[in-house]
Amino acid sequence: MKAVALLGGPKRNWPAKLQKRLATSDFKIGVDRGSLLLLELGFQPDLAIGDFDSLRPAELAQVEKSVKDIRYSNPVKDDTDTELMITAACRDYQVDQLEIYGATGGRIDHFLSNLFMFLKPQLQQFAPRISLIDQQNLVKFLSPGENVIPPIAGYHYFAVFCLGSTQKLNIRSARYNLTNFSTTYPRIFTSNEFLDQQTPCKIDFSYGQVVVVYTRDLDRFLNA
Amino acid sequence: MKAVALLGGPKRNWPAKLQKRLATSDFKIGVDRGSLLLLELGFQPDLAIGDFDSLRPAELAQVEKSVKDIRYSNPVKDDTDTELMITAACRDYQVDQLEIYGATGGRIDHFLSNLFMFLKPQLQQFAPRISLIDQQNLVKFLSPGENVIPPIAGYHYFAVFCLGSTQKLNIRSARYNLTNFSTTYPRIFTSNEFLDQQTPCKIDFSYGQVVVVYTRDLDRFLNA
Repeated sequence: MKAVALLGGPKRNWPAKLQKRLATSDFKIGVDRGSLLLLELGFQPDLAIGDFDSLRPAELAQVEKSVKDIRYSNPVKDDTDTELMITAACRDYQVDQLEIYGATGGRIDHFLSNLFMFLKPQLQQFAPRISLIDQQNLVKFLSPGENVIPPIAGYHYFAVFCLGSTQKLNIRSARYNLTNFSTTYPRIFTSNEFLDQQTPCKIDFSYGQVVVVYTRDLDRFLNA
Repeated sequence: MKAVALLGGPKRNWPAKLQKRLATSDFKIGVDRGSLLLLELGFQPDLAIGDFDSLRPAELAQVEKSVKDIRYSNPVKDDTDTELMITAACRDYQVDQLEIYGATGGRIDHFLSNLFMFLKPQLQQFAPRISLIDQQNLVKFLSPGENVIPPIAGYHYFAVFCLGSTQKLNIRSARYNLTNFSTTYPRIFTSNEFLDQQTPCKIDFSYGQVVVVYTRDLDRFLNA
């Protein structure tokens, strides 16, 4: 099942295709204020998770009336709403592909906790199913072993980010290759490029959490 | 000397106070496209650094005509334009307080490389002089030992982010305190709060790179 989740990050970072991705998804999830944003876009969430403290009472009532499965989180607990949502989607609903929007561009602490959540052992198993998507970026979480990274139209660059200790990282069939790289702390390799629009890049590593960020510049003459 | 640097990130993430901060700064720095953005705002950069490949020839000519000290970077080298800029500002110009704008909200790989640059040993000495600032966030880089973190009006929350291996981290005089925490990988503690608008929080650690993110929600009824 393919699912789309909307978090509460700023609308200005949504990609143009969000509406279409929601329309064609099997399952829609709102996280906290994202539940209301889904309703505003004309979509009924199948699942909503959050402490909903950013909603006015009338807004919360609207969410509660519209959502089949609503789950209330405890704001003082260790797990973030996004983490609870991923566990619910992947374990309870067997979602095997989950695109997350609204995770970037606002509060830096929220973005970082979304980026680093797969360092938690209990979440690692779900990482390959997840993408974070915004106006300029697509983030994919890799697994140890070999990963085939196809070019995606519209993204000129890709970056490889070691979230923490990583062993024997190789990047092959890319403009800038890397051989047998190991690190004990986070490292990022920015602005790599595919060889052409057809040839996938290959990334393998023996240990660690590695992220690929497909990315593009803003239209250089707009910078809106 | 107090300096302001403008990078090429999206204008939509600039804080309202940027113009005023530029007007009252002693020294203005443009990084790559940020040099042109400074000119568009009516300010002449004292220093410009970049490979300038995002500028049209006429734009580059305008920058070259207006800037006293212009330095061309090599895009294939290991150091990013931002890293070169920090070294030039702090070493060559003895800048002791540097606010960086335009570092967030666009390409995730650019933001992450700006956030993690102080893991490079040669840059660590400059970390305490630097702030990254956008519409919702203010990022400060701490040093091992005791750090006094004053409340700043307009920021409701703060987060503490261990960039990598960190030892004996204590957070005191905050809503959520932490005692003698150590980690071997990045960890983020989000949505902490000051006790009140006067009492500083105290953060100390014996080893590592630790960041404080002052942050606030968007106006909940705007989310523009």
